[in-house]
Amino acid sequence: MITLDCIPCLLAHSLKAMRRAGVPKGSEKELFENALGEAKIMLDGSPAPIAAAAIYRLISEKTGNNDPFRDFKKKSTAMALEILPRLREMVTASDDPFARAIEFSIAGNAIDLVKMEESDLGGIIDLLEKSESGEFVSEDISALESEIFGADSVFVIGDNAGETVFDRLFLELINGPKVYYGVRGGPVLNDATAKEAEESGIGEIAEIISSESAIPGTVLEKVGEKFRKIFDEADVVIAKGQGNFETLDESPRPIYHLFKAKCEPIAERVGCNVGDFIVWKNSPNNI
Amino acid sequence: MITLDCIPCLLAHSLKAMRRAGVPKGSEKELFENALGEAKIMLDGSPAPIAAAAIYRLISEKTGNNDPFRDFKKKSTAMALEILPRLREMVTASDDPFARAIEFSIAGNAIDLVKMEESDLGGIIDLLEKSESGEFVSEDISALESEIFGADSVFVIGDNAGETVFDRLFLELINGPKVYYGVRGGPVLNDATAKEAEESGIGEIAEIISSESAIPGTVLEKVGEKFRKIFDEADVVIAKGQGNFETLDESPRPIYHLFKAKCEPIAERVGCNVGDFIVWKNSPNNI
Repeated sequence: MITLDCIPCLLAHSLKAMRRAGVPKGSEKELFENALGEAKIMLDGSPAPIAAAAIYRLISEKTGNNDPFRDFKKKSTAMALEILPRLREMVTASDDPFARAIEFSIAGNAIDLVKMEESDLGGIIDLLEKSESGEFVSEDISALESEIFGADSVFVIGDNAGETVFDRLFLELINGPKVYYGVRGGPVLNDATAKEAEESGIGEIAEIISSESAIPGTVLEKVGEKFRKIFDEADVVIAKGQGNFETLDESPRPIYHLFKAKCEPIAERVGCNVGDFIVWKNSPNNI
Repeated sequence: MITLDCIPCLLAHSLKAMRRAGVPKGSEKELFENALGEAKIMLDGSPAPIAAAAIYRLISEKTGNNDPFRDFKKKSTAMALEILPRLREMVTASDDPFARAIEFSIAGNAIDLVKMEESDLGGIIDLLEKSESGEFVSEDISALESEIFGADSVFVIGDNAGETVFDRLFLELINGPKVYYGVRGGPVLNDATAKEAEESGIGEIAEIISSESAIPGTVLEKVGEKFRKIFDEADVVIAKGQGNFETLDESPRPIYHLFKAKCEPIAERVGCNVGDFIVWKNSPNNI
């Protein structure tokens, strides 16, 4: 999906990302002028993650750093790994551990490069500890649960570094189906590449599949052949985060989108409030 | 002042204004594309109100309506007039009626075309009723008070329609100095022109001076001769709102800016938090 509202929002985010990446003050204006040019592709219906990828490349060039958010990603992963044992305890103690683990995976989507400080990760745990199972995500996730357990293959398309650790929680509980975990093909913002997925321990429980494109979303025309084949053929596809939602919400194949609704147009599209943690299934019937 | 952050913010506001003005759905994209072009003048240091004026003209053209926010302005004024007697009582009952009236005038700056629903005006009264005198605006306004009472002439540069009624409260208490009230030279957003100032009853207590430019701020190179003369020669100049702040904050003449800080860069510039109600004096010493 794409709305005109995505343009000022992406530009505002780009400014924050550019500053967080350490672009020199004197280069900010020139970079932003170029970003304005890149953002214009959205006027022709190109989803925000494609423009975001182009702007990210400008940031990389200006900082002379191919992976300027590597430190942020490493820290997010390390902090999430630190709380992993506590999360596991909470999952195990739950009436429905699998459903609770899915809820935690959605909560992990609150990790956000520009909207969050690194120190906010503790807030997510507080949120989870205070919420009862079933209360955190209002939607019924039993359909997803039974689909996973009846499947031969499950493809989870990851989103941000750190969030990957939260995904690991429910991947560990899948027993039977072959599990694939999709990652970005190269550094882009704080999205997880194979490196960050490995650092999260995902490699031990799933086969990591690169999209082969450094786009913070899943643009099917640009993903590698293997990624595409698994996407088409997996019994269950789960897409994490808004970037994947924005690029896949109109796909005719059924996909379970798990994410935090971070803006008004998306909340409206899925029928929730901004800030809600969401399970939304797209299928030929509701696109 | 101008920051790169003003660009995405203005674009987001323009989208809201465009929808509120009733631009047909089919024209939104083209208008927004043109708005992107207009916004680029800010890259060369042109303050946001100049780009806002250009985008407003695009909105007027597309709606075929020279004053698409006239209804909003009329309603804001009518609602403010309806609560005026209650505000007057509160001012009269205060220990320092003049200071309290100034506070109310600043509170009136919360009236905002895109950030506020018409129904929110009641919230401003609640806010005022709950606040103690002196608590609402943290700054000391006694300096402004004594300057006004020692002056021969006071020039208040108005901002939005409706807010004008709140300004009237303290203008009524000025006894002695000649009072001028500045308005926009033509319709632009929900800013007050002479028409809305008259509807607020300002004409009875002050001489209304048009800027002769339809810009939601005060660009001295573009104001009429009379406006400029009064601006230069008045003993005290008071500028209401962010639009006037953004265009006058670097003026060498002392100006008391009264406004609600509605964004991060401005809050940072004046050293307050977003949402604070502010008295900020610019002078050759602090620009």
